[in-house]
Amino acid sequence: SPAVAHSQAESLLAFLLLLVGGMFSASTPPPGPLEKIFQYIDLHQDEFVQTLKEWVAVESDSVQPAPRLRRELLHMVGLAADRLRGLGARVASVDAGFQQLPDGQTLPIPPILLAELGSDPKKPTVCFYGHLDVQPARQEDGWLTDPYTLTEVDGKLYGRGTTDNKGPVLAWINAVSAFKALDEDLPVNIKFLIEGMEEAGSLALEELVRKEKSGFFSSVDCIVISDNLWISQRKPALIYGTRGNSYFTVEVKCRDQDFHSGTFGGILNEPMADLVALLGSLVDASGHILVPGIYEHVAPVTEEEKRVYEDTDLDMEEYRNSSQVKRFLFDTKEELLMHLWRYPSLSIHGIEGAFHEPGAKTVIPGRVMGKFSIRLVPHMDMSVVETQVTQHLEYIFSKRNSSNQMTVSMALGLHPWIANVSDRQYLAAKRAIRTVFGTEPDMIRDGSTIPIAKILQDTTQKSVIMLPLGAVDDGEHSQNEKINRWNYIEGSKLFAAFFLEMAKLHSSW
Amino acid sequence: SPAVAHSQAESLLAFLLLLVGGMFSASTPPPGPLEKIFQYIDLHQDEFVQTLKEWVAVESDSVQPAPRLRRELLHMVGLAADRLRGLGARVASVDAGFQQLPDGQTLPIPPILLAELGSDPKKPTVCFYGHLDVQPARQEDGWLTDPYTLTEVDGKLYGRGTTDNKGPVLAWINAVSAFKALDEDLPVNIKFLIEGMEEAGSLALEELVRKEKSGFFSSVDCIVISDNLWISQRKPALIYGTRGNSYFTVEVKCRDQDFHSGTFGGILNEPMADLVALLGSLVDASGHILVPGIYEHVAPVTEEEKRVYEDTDLDMEEYRNSSQVKRFLFDTKEELLMHLWRYPSLSIHGIEGAFHEPGAKTVIPGRVMGKFSIRLVPHMDMSVVETQVTQHLEYIFSKRNSSNQMTVSMALGLHPWIANVSDRQYLAAKRAIRTVFGTEPDMIRDGSTIPIAKILQDTTQKSVIMLPLGAVDDGEHSQNEKINRWNYIEGSKLFAAFFLEMAKLHSSW
Repeated sequence: SPAVAHSQAESLLAFLLLLVGGMFSASTPPPGPLEKIFQYIDLHQDEFVQTLKEWVAVESDSVQPAPRLRRELLHMVGLAADRLRGLGARVASVDAGFQQLPDGQTLPIPPILLAELGSDPKKPTVCFYGHLDVQPARQEDGWLTDPYTLTEVDGKLYGRGTTDNKGPVLAWINAVSAFKALDEDLPVNIKFLIEGMEEAGSLALEELVRKEKSGFFSSVDCIVISDNLWISQRKPALIYGTRGNSYFTVEVKCRDQDFHSGTFGGILNEPMADLVALLGSLVDASGHILVPGIYEHVAPVTEEEKRVYEDTDLDMEEYRNSSQVKRFLFDTKEELLMHLWRYPSLSIHGIEGAFHEPGAKTVIPGRVMGKFSIRLVPHMDMSVVETQVTQHLEYIFSKRNSSNQMTVSMALGLHPWIANVSDRQYLAAKRAIRTVFGTEPDMIRDGSTIPIAKILQDTTQKSVIMLPLGAVDDGEHSQNEKINRWNYIEGSKLFAAFFLEMAKLHSSW
Repeated sequence: SPAVAHSQAESLLAFLLLLVGGMFSASTPPPGPLEKIFQYIDLHQDEFVQTLKEWVAVESDSVQPAPRLRRELLHMVGLAADRLRGLGARVASVDAGFQQLPDGQTLPIPPILLAELGSDPKKPTVCFYGHLDVQPARQEDGWLTDPYTLTEVDGKLYGRGTTDNKGPVLAWINAVSAFKALDEDLPVNIKFLIEGMEEAGSLALEELVRKEKSGFFSSVDCIVISDNLWISQRKPALIYGTRGNSYFTVEVKCRDQDFHSGTFGGILNEPMADLVALLGSLVDASGHILVPGIYEHVAPVTEEEKRVYEDTDLDMEEYRNSSQVKRFLFDTKEELLMHLWRYPSLSIHGIEGAFHEPGAKTVIPGRVMGKFSIRLVPHMDMSVVETQVTQHLEYIFSKRNSSNQMTVSMALGLHPWIANVSDRQYLAAKRAIRTVFGTEPDMIRDGSTIPIAKILQDTTQKSVIMLPLGAVDDGEHSQNEKINRWNYIEGSKLFAAFFLEMAKLHSSW
């Protein structure tokens, strides 16, 4: 279970920092390095937005397997490599081989960038992970502006990839570039791990990370990921856990061909009737998963953890409105967040092979495949979950005495991730947030699955932090994705402040 | 209830016919008109197949509302009108107006053809109903050949529409054309009622039939429909009843947009969970419909009816094999046929709005619509069924206490049909079957819905017969639809023989 209590030392440091901050504003002395950095970032914010615009203009869609899009993606990675070299970084562009598509087509996987800036043994080494690829977007899907032309409206920078993940990657680069431009000594050694296949399952990344464990990653102190969102429009957050995911398919087959419901209706064990019964046995109306044993390994809630949920800001009314949901399953903030972050959930996604088009087709589908997934939390074990689900469905199916064939399969399994919030980089990030935003962050988890955190943590044995910049309404993966100018610019400052806090902790630890 | 006993007169006639048949083969006298017709059909069978190939090549799909397909459909109707004119028929191509689609789009309904050949008051007038439109078909759905290129393999003519209904329409035309080519007097006056919207609910047809009751239909003695299948691969059948159909949609909506299952999984009444529970409440594993009261108005089985089922030929083993079904819900021929023909059945067709593609998408669909239908039998009342289903689903939904909205709607309602088997055209058809196939037909019903039979019978007050040509394994509406060359050619002969038998009965009645 996560350790989230603030240490006494941390509280003392926070107090001193506030005191120092107060002294500055009271006496306005000559600006220190951070103030100069902040000024620089404020003064150059239009340049930073311009660069984001140039990056958004590249349709680096890794999801749709089209050669044209793959060329765009390769171009995007080249742009980023140039930018990193411009900072003075040594950039290795590591060949990642080819992607085999189901239809036999082969597409190049964009190279993975490993970049390094500084190797001072007295400084901590901070590695930033980010990605340059985006989800598909077409204006006719419901965008109000061209998704690949960054458009600013009321301080909102609309465009595909603005918040996921080009904006945060550039914010990190902006922070470094401010130090460089002002000729200030970078307080940390910086590494970059930048890929172009995140939206397509981070192909080839895990293998490279494993290979570089005792190379590129050996000197790294912590890894920063900035690839998700706050849970508020204005209050920053730190993320210390993500749920995993077990994605299941359950196929029921009578025969390969469909039947006509007039010619066969009444005498068959219809596969859809079997499948609907199977899917209906998974979760009850209150969201409780009905698979026996599934909650056995879920970590119990500690008193300490309860307080974190009580401390988290969530305006239920605003959340309900922005989600356009009439009523959630839970009425309190604590219950709601716990069911999003620290309890498993089961969602039924759909059915392959049944009639899905508009209109009234009188078909008895001959072979249908239901799809559902379970979001996993510590300490659920993926192979145990697989066995529990399979045995449950086999039991339900056997009770029906159907003549059809049923096949259950776990198509995808991704572990949950949880960090130790007493790790150094969480303290540094909290302090940086206080400096830039004047507030404590929400300590949150993410209900969705970001496999890279778990992969990086397990493979490199380095500690990982998620330090998001985007607001809750940024709409990643959705139409009209945006990042607020304020988040992008203050986020660049946040990273700069984080460098300094990491350096301070490094010398004092 | 159907009267299916053979009359004594009929038995005598059958005997005489067999006797006459035996005399011909013994002494080989100069061929009579029917023998010449049969010879002609045999000799010209490749031409008839070639015409079917030309018709199959037209993608006259009326189901998918695409302008391109609608143009194909109009072209198909034009081809048929030309063909009928080629026979010497007077053809009226009746404008049928426009189809309003739910999205506001408007498509032309293909004209309905009313054609007449002969008006001799001394002859009976036989009207043939058929349709030129087809169900959608794409090779990637699992066709072994291009669905719109008629392909012959081992005497099977594969292609969309071969058996449903282009083949039978052409068989009727082939029969007429044989008389014409040989300059034989047509023993009956022939009318054609040919439409292009059968698969889309026969839009505009009923109105036209009503309008033409005392016009086109006034001189008609009987109406022949050949739009279904035998229940055997080799033994012909006559059909005296069809089931109706009530097609329902049940929509569950949380919001219009989908959700991400990571970001919202665990806190929502997910529409798919609601829908799966609703669909799962409709029918049990034994095929029994669970909607309260639904069996109340189903006609009880009479002793006489039981005998018809006992007399019907059905090789269960062959039927199971040709259907590629491991086990049916019932083990005896009688139970099986009764559940196909004279009991209602409920089939779940699919879900609109959920994830239906290959792959693993982690979506919580925001709004989903389940589709199912109930095959109706005498004396179920459609509006009673509508109320029963709606109240049942409302009850199940209310028990879930879900915050979603549910909407039930009966999208389509079609009455069942039953004929009087002692009507003249049943006798004529039986005799024609004995002549061509040397056997008694199976007296059967059809579990599927051919609303036109009920509409034509009720509106014109003329007696209707269904005289199918296709074999049980033809796969109408399915992948790899086919008609056997043998069925197509012998079916053309059957129609020719039927003309003669109708004429004989007309003069002797």
